[in-house]
Amino acid sequence: MKKNLKLGVFGFGCVGQGLYHVLNETHGVKAEIKKFCVKNRNKARIIDASYFTYNADDILNDPEIDVVVELIDDANAAFEIVKKAVENGKHVVTANKKMLAEHLEEIYELQKTYDRSILYEGAVCGSIPILRNLEEYYDNDLITSIEGIFNGSTNYILTKVFEERKNYAEALKAAQELGFAETDPSLDVKGYDPKFKLAIAITHTFGVFVRPENIINIGIDKISATDLKYARENNLTIKLVARSYKIRDEIFGFVAPQYIPTDNMLASVRNEYNAVLVEGAFAEKQVFIGKGAGSYPTGSAVLSDISALTFNYRYEYKKIAQNDGLPFSNNVLVDAVVSFPQGNLITPQDFETFKGGYQGGGFQNLHGSVPLEKLKEWAGWDNVSVILAPEINLKAVPASELVERLTA
Amino acid sequence: MKKNLKLGVFGFGCVGQGLYHVLNETHGVKAEIKKFCVKNRNKARIIDASYFTYNADDILNDPEIDVVVELIDDANAAFEIVKKAVENGKHVVTANKKMLAEHLEEIYELQKTYDRSILYEGAVCGSIPILRNLEEYYDNDLITSIEGIFNGSTNYILTKVFEERKNYAEALKAAQELGFAETDPSLDVKGYDPKFKLAIAITHTFGVFVRPENIINIGIDKISATDLKYARENNLTIKLVARSYKIRDEIFGFVAPQYIPTDNMLASVRNEYNAVLVEGAFAEKQVFIGKGAGSYPTGSAVLSDISALTFNYRYEYKKIAQNDGLPFSNNVLVDAVVSFPQGNLITPQDFETFKGGYQGGGFQNLHGSVPLEKLKEWAGWDNVSVILAPEINLKAVPASELVERLTA
Repeated sequence: MKKNLKLGVFGFGCVGQGLYHVLNETHGVKAEIKKFCVKNRNKARIIDASYFTYNADDILNDPEIDVVVELIDDANAAFEIVKKAVENGKHVVTANKKMLAEHLEEIYELQKTYDRSILYEGAVCGSIPILRNLEEYYDNDLITSIEGIFNGSTNYILTKVFEERKNYAEALKAAQELGFAETDPSLDVKGYDPKFKLAIAITHTFGVFVRPENIINIGIDKISATDLKYARENNLTIKLVARSYKIRDEIFGFVAPQYIPTDNMLASVRNEYNAVLVEGAFAEKQVFIGKGAGSYPTGSAVLSDISALTFNYRYEYKKIAQNDGLPFSNNVLVDAVVSFPQGNLITPQDFETFKGGYQGGGFQNLHGSVPLEKLKEWAGWDNVSVILAPEINLKAVPASELVERLTA
Repeated sequence: MKKNLKLGVFGFGCVGQGLYHVLNETHGVKAEIKKFCVKNRNKARIIDASYFTYNADDILNDPEIDVVVELIDDANAAFEIVKKAVENGKHVVTANKKMLAEHLEEIYELQKTYDRSILYEGAVCGSIPILRNLEEYYDNDLITSIEGIFNGSTNYILTKVFEERKNYAEALKAAQELGFAETDPSLDVKGYDPKFKLAIAITHTFGVFVRPENIINIGIDKISATDLKYARENNLTIKLVARSYKIRDEIFGFVAPQYIPTDNMLASVRNEYNAVLVEGAFAEKQVFIGKGAGSYPTGSAVLSDISALTFNYRYEYKKIAQNDGLPFSNNVLVDAVVSFPQGNLITPQDFETFKGGYQGGGFQNLHGSVPLEKLKEWAGWDNVSVILAPEINLKAVPASELVERLTA
């Protein structure tokens, strides 16, 4: 049952190199790398040149290669590689969250059509085995929510800003030097990266496909010195939280920063660590914490997927069968704190339910219940920062009512 | 592949009742309870009398029953039930940690001999899917340690004592009323229960079988008011930690209370929540947190095991094959804080390396590196409390050297 797999790997960056070393050092996984395909002929390579090719078809058309491991940056090129690999009868391991979020339904269909496995544990929170657990352990229909800290780079920045009082720019630079940040850091700090991961997690949690462009993301790039002061004075920290809930028969999901009490478990998740909280009707609250960024954490997830392929593992997407097309909706009210320079930019009347405010030092913050889509709009205005309250008091709202509120 | 399983359940306490309700409410798991076997004829039953039998063979000899679910207290009777069930061609789900810890090698052999599956996720930290993850995701040989808070009752007591300043007896009573404590609470507070769970975890983490009587356990029952004061003054809390490490080619494991800094992740694991930290060479640190006690958390683990049986799931015990009989040893030095009433009961000379001490209010505490077996001896002396230091600085010691130190 357990075969020795031959791998063709696209990309020889941190994760590809880490994978090479790990496979050499562990005897438990019956797999070997036959070929690396890379773009750049001139990069110094630390292993023998015979491992390398510059032609994708040398891997994709090689009948000896059982599994394609896709570790490149470019999401479009990555999808083309994955598609061709499966069409040519190969299994795939990838960790490319943007590519997966944008093509997940096609990825699902490719597996069914060609009877091949595409695994991507490393795409959602690095080393945390969340997809494997959603598939195998939480396979009945009793999960009510999934949320957490899904981005290592922004969590690193927020930790350094709060604990070491680094300024944002210094902290971002350090995250980039450590290899935690995306090539384009706005993918992290504006909340796109956690949104891609959330889209993938939603499919495995609730069995629905959501286009990432339909998920609202508010990032950490607008957080001000006033917000940090307010947090410290109130024994709070700030975390960038991705979340999704099933309420009655609708699915909701969004990414936004949130004030978190310092004695809350999420507050103790630091630096590049990620956290995933799953809540179920019977298991109640389950928390998974692990490194979400870096070559070894991602590499270990890729390694676990390769190992699973030696046992013919497949994602079964059981919840898609169970949930039969539940709709995804952004029609929710949430409690948030909005801060901006003193003035009438936003007033208590703009809130569904205004709950209080603070003014001082040229700034004000207002706190209350707001439609999510209105929060997203405010978050785009100059000098306005939006941070969810410690208790978000999420309320689903029928669409007709919400249109009234948004246009009032 | 997915069959509809008929279950015979031994026990109709909290977990049995919870399981009945859960199976009625979820449509995802293809299983139904045919029969409950109970001891007590006179207990009022909330479901129809036809479900009940008082004769174990009505389940064990019924060819229609595919899976026996064992949810009774008595470890010896439980083992006899499990053994006979498997001999009669049935699979088994159990959560009886004492029975499993005492018979794990036989449990393993029974599965091989009769080609049947015995699953027991609920036995180790309730709802946390740790065994499933050790088996399926961490299946290569790269784990270096496993540790955590493995007992909900003592964690509840310690949380109440520290956060609500309840006294120990009040907190124990509350734990019992909430159903978190074992029938005999000394199993919890003296550290036997977490030891049973550790023994099981060690087999799935490192592939060795350890007799529970060979594992050292120090409990929370000797912790004094002085210790609590010392903790509060030093921004520490106290947790009962079970741990096991692989160092070079030996396995170490023990249970003892430890001082934990209040900003450490473990400090935020409260009440009946358990935590498991797995450290691997490549995944680095992974944390799982979930409810370790109570009928729904345990019931959800039992439910996940039943669901897995509908897909013919089996533990493969891969690490037993990989690790080929690594020895278990207690030859370690650890850093600990020992406190007792003022006097010469224990002196700095009794430490391998003495690192400091404090005297006052009729008490003293001494801190330093001590052989584990000497700590266990001290922990048994009247009025002596042993709590590991925040950094335990564990050092494996060759057996010959250690004999000298213990008898010096």
